[in-house]
Amino acid sequence: MRILSASQFDGKRSVDSGTKEQQEAVKAILSDVRQRGDEALRDYTERFDRVRLEQFRVSEEEFAEAASQVSPEVRAALEEAAENIRDFHQRQVRQSWFSTKESGTLLGQIIRPLKRAGLYVPGGTAAYPSSVLMNAIPAKIAGVPEVVITTPPGRDGKINPAILVAAQIAGVKEIYKVGGAQAIAALTYGTEQIKAVDKIVGPGNIFVALAKREVFGLVSIDMVAGPSEIAVLADETANPRYIAADLLSQAEHDPMSAAILVTTSQAVAESVAQEVERQLAELPRKEIAEAAIRDFGAILVVNDLEEGFAAINRIAPEHLEIMIAEPFEHLGKVENAGAIFLGPYSSEPVGDYFAGTNHVIPTNGTARFSSPLSVDDFIKKSSVVSYSKQDLRENGHKIVALAEQEGLAAHGRAITERLRDFDREEQERDSK
Amino acid sequence: MRILSASQFDGKRSVDSGTKEQQEAVKAILSDVRQRGDEALRDYTERFDRVRLEQFRVSEEEFAEAASQVSPEVRAALEEAAENIRDFHQRQVRQSWFSTKESGTLLGQIIRPLKRAGLYVPGGTAAYPSSVLMNAIPAKIAGVPEVVITTPPGRDGKINPAILVAAQIAGVKEIYKVGGAQAIAALTYGTEQIKAVDKIVGPGNIFVALAKREVFGLVSIDMVAGPSEIAVLADETANPRYIAADLLSQAEHDPMSAAILVTTSQAVAESVAQEVERQLAELPRKEIAEAAIRDFGAILVVNDLEEGFAAINRIAPEHLEIMIAEPFEHLGKVENAGAIFLGPYSSEPVGDYFAGTNHVIPTNGTARFSSPLSVDDFIKKSSVVSYSKQDLRENGHKIVALAEQEGLAAHGRAITERLRDFDREEQERDSK
Repeated sequence: MRILSASQFDGKRSVDSGTKEQQEAVKAILSDVRQRGDEALRDYTERFDRVRLEQFRVSEEEFAEAASQVSPEVRAALEEAAENIRDFHQRQVRQSWFSTKESGTLLGQIIRPLKRAGLYVPGGTAAYPSSVLMNAIPAKIAGVPEVVITTPPGRDGKINPAILVAAQIAGVKEIYKVGGAQAIAALTYGTEQIKAVDKIVGPGNIFVALAKREVFGLVSIDMVAGPSEIAVLADETANPRYIAADLLSQAEHDPMSAAILVTTSQAVAESVAQEVERQLAELPRKEIAEAAIRDFGAILVVNDLEEGFAAINRIAPEHLEIMIAEPFEHLGKVENAGAIFLGPYSSEPVGDYFAGTNHVIPTNGTARFSSPLSVDDFIKKSSVVSYSKQDLRENGHKIVALAEQEGLAAHGRAITERLRDFDREEQERDSK
Repeated sequence: MRILSASQFDGKRSVDSGTKEQQEAVKAILSDVRQRGDEALRDYTERFDRVRLEQFRVSEEEFAEAASQVSPEVRAALEEAAENIRDFHQRQVRQSWFSTKESGTLLGQIIRPLKRAGLYVPGGTAAYPSSVLMNAIPAKIAGVPEVVITTPPGRDGKINPAILVAAQIAGVKEIYKVGGAQAIAALTYGTEQIKAVDKIVGPGNIFVALAKREVFGLVSIDMVAGPSEIAVLADETANPRYIAADLLSQAEHDPMSAAILVTTSQAVAESVAQEVERQLAELPRKEIAEAAIRDFGAILVVNDLEEGFAAINRIAPEHLEIMIAEPFEHLGKVENAGAIFLGPYSSEPVGDYFAGTNHVIPTNGTARFSSPLSVDDFIKKSSVVSYSKQDLRENGHKIVALAEQEGLAAHGRAITERLRDFDREEQERDSK
C-alpha cells in the first residue's frame, strides 16, 4: 500500500456515467417498457436473466419456502439488526408544526409520508439482505403505506431466500422479480402488474444507475451511488491490525473501492501497510481487495491532526473511522463524512449490519452535500398559510408594491380585489 | 374557461427535456467552461448577453448605486418580507442529536450546513427580487457560510438594482454577472474568479434547467422547476372574484402555467368562468394569461368534497387554495400539494411575497414526492457510531454471521480481529 504525504494525494475519482452505448440501451429499455408494459418486462427478463416469467410478483408459497432456507442464526441476527435500525430511525421522525399569531394568521409545515416507494435490490452472485433492511425500514418508519421491492430473478425464476426473509422482517410483502433498467422503468411508469411509485431507492449496476438518472424528476430517486469507500484517521494510539482489517472490509466490495489511511504516525503507517499485505493474503475476495488497495488505496502521513482533518474533509469519505486518543474532542472538526465511527470498537461493519445507523451513505465525495438515507427521504412537506383578514388589510399594499415592482400585475390585483372589499366594508360601517 | 367533470380531466403535463440541439449545446458549454474557465465565460457572456466582461464579480460601487435606485417603499416591503421569511425558516432548523446506551454505545446524527451554495437568479425582462430572498434566506438560516449568486448581466454589463438590494437584505455579498448554462458550469467546476459550490438552487430557462440536470451528482441541485400552477378547491361559500383573481395571478407567469378550479358548486363554476374573462381583459400580461387559461386552465365540477380532494391529490398542485366553509376540518385530506392556502384571505401572492413560507415549490405533479425549498436543502447529515467494547463483545458474532451470509468475509474479519483480542484478554485474566 503506497505511503504518501497529504499534498501528494488529491483523491479525485470520476463518476461513471456509462458509455454512449449503455446510455442508449437504457433509454431504449425505458421507452419500450413505458409503451409495452409487462410484455417488455418479460422480454428483457428473458434476455438478461434467462428466464421468462408470466407473473412477476413473488407468491406466498415462495416466501414460505424462503423462510425454511435461511439459518435460524442469520434470521435472528437480521431480526435484531432490524430492531436496532428501527430504534435509530424512529428518532429521525419529524412532526408537522404550526405557528400562530395574535393577528389571526397561522403558518405551518405539514410532514407526510410518500404514498408508494420502490426499493431496487441487486441480484446476481451476492445477495445483500442487510440492504433490504436499510432501505425498507426508514420508509416504513416514515409511514409509507406501500413499500415494494424489485429484484432480478435467478435463472430458476427465484429470488435469493435471504432477500425474501429480510423483506418479511422489514414488513415488505410486495416483491417483483424484475431487475435492471427495466425494473426502474416499471417503477417509474407502471405496468399492468407493477404500479408506479413516487420514489426509487437502492443500489444497482451501471444500467440501473443510468436509468435512475434518466427518470430523475418523474420520480424521486435517492442518489447515484459509486463504489464504497473508507477513510481512517489514526494517531499513534491506534491498533494497526484493526485499521488494516477495516480498510480491507471496504476494499473487498469492488475493485474501485477506496481505502485510505490518514495518520500522524509514521510507525502506524508502516505497520498498517504490512498488516494489509498479511491480511490480504487470507481473503476469499483477495483479487478484488488487492486491486482496490493498489489503485485506490493510500496511506497519507500528516504532521498533525489539523492536517489530518483537512485531508479527510477534502476526501469527504462515505465512511470515516477516527481512531485517536480523544475522538469526541475532535468530532467537531469533521466537515464532510457520511458516517463517522469513533474509537477502536466502532469497526465499520458494525454500521453496515447492526448498530442501527443506515449503511446507504453518500460516496465519491458527495458527503460534501448529501446525507445517509433516512426517514427524511420518505417524507414530503407542504407549507400551510392561513392568512387573516387583519394581516391582509395591514400588509396588502406591501404585497401589491412587490408584485408591481416585478411586473406581475395580476399578482397585485389578487390582493387589491380583497382590499377594495375591505375599504367598501369600512365605508359602509362609517356611513351607518 | 372550460368547465369539465373531474373524470374528463387528467391534468398530465409533460416535462420539457429540451431538444437534442439544446442538450448538445448545454453539454458543449459545460465542457468548455470546465476546460477554459473564465475565458469561456467571457465568450459565452459576449455571445448571449452581448457584453464582454473582465471581472464578473459585482463591485461595492455597483451595490451602492443599486441601493439608490430602488424606491424606499419597495425596500421596506422587501425588508419586512425578509423578516417574515427568516421567522418561518428559523422554525425549520434542526439539531444534531445523540442517543446513549448503558452498554456504552452512542449513536447519533450530526447536522451541518453546506459550506458553499450557489443561487441562480434569472435575468432578462423580469427581475424577481422576491426569489433572491426565498432562495438565499434558507441557506443563511441553515448557516451556510458562503452563499453566492450568479445572474446574467444586461447589455450595459449591469444587474437589475432590485436584485442587488434583495441580495444585500438577504446578506449575500458575492454576486457574479454570469447567466445561462455557463453559470451552472462555473458553479459546478469553478473557474479562476468563481469558486465551485456544493449546491445550486434557483430557477432558470431551459438551458439552465438542462445544465442543472447534467451536473446533478457532481453538485447537489434543488429541483427541475416547471411552469407555475395553482389549483383552487371551492364550495358554494367561496367568492368567485377572489378565485378568478388568484387563478389569473398564476396564469400570468407563463403561457404554460396551469390554473384549475375544482368546485362542488355549478354556480361558482359559472361565475368564476365569467370573472376570469372580465378580469383577463384588464391585465397587462393578458396574452400570456389568456394562453395559459386556454391551454392549461380548467374548471372541474365535482359532486362533493371527497371527489374534490381526490382530484386535487391527482393533480398534486404547486399551490393549492382551499376556499371552503371549514378549511381546517378538511386539511388532513390533502395528500399532495406543495403549499396550501386556507380561506378567503390567503391569496396565493401572500405566499409568493410576504407571509414567510417559501415560494420555491414543486411543480408539475412533483409535490407527490418533493417539498418546498427549506433549511433542509442546505444542510447535510452524518451518522455517528461510537460502539462500546461491551456491545462488540456481545454482538460481534451476529455481525460476523451476517457478513458471512453475504459472502463478505473481510467484513467479518474486521470484527473477529477484535473478538480474538477480547478472548485473549479474558484468558489472560482467567489465568491470573
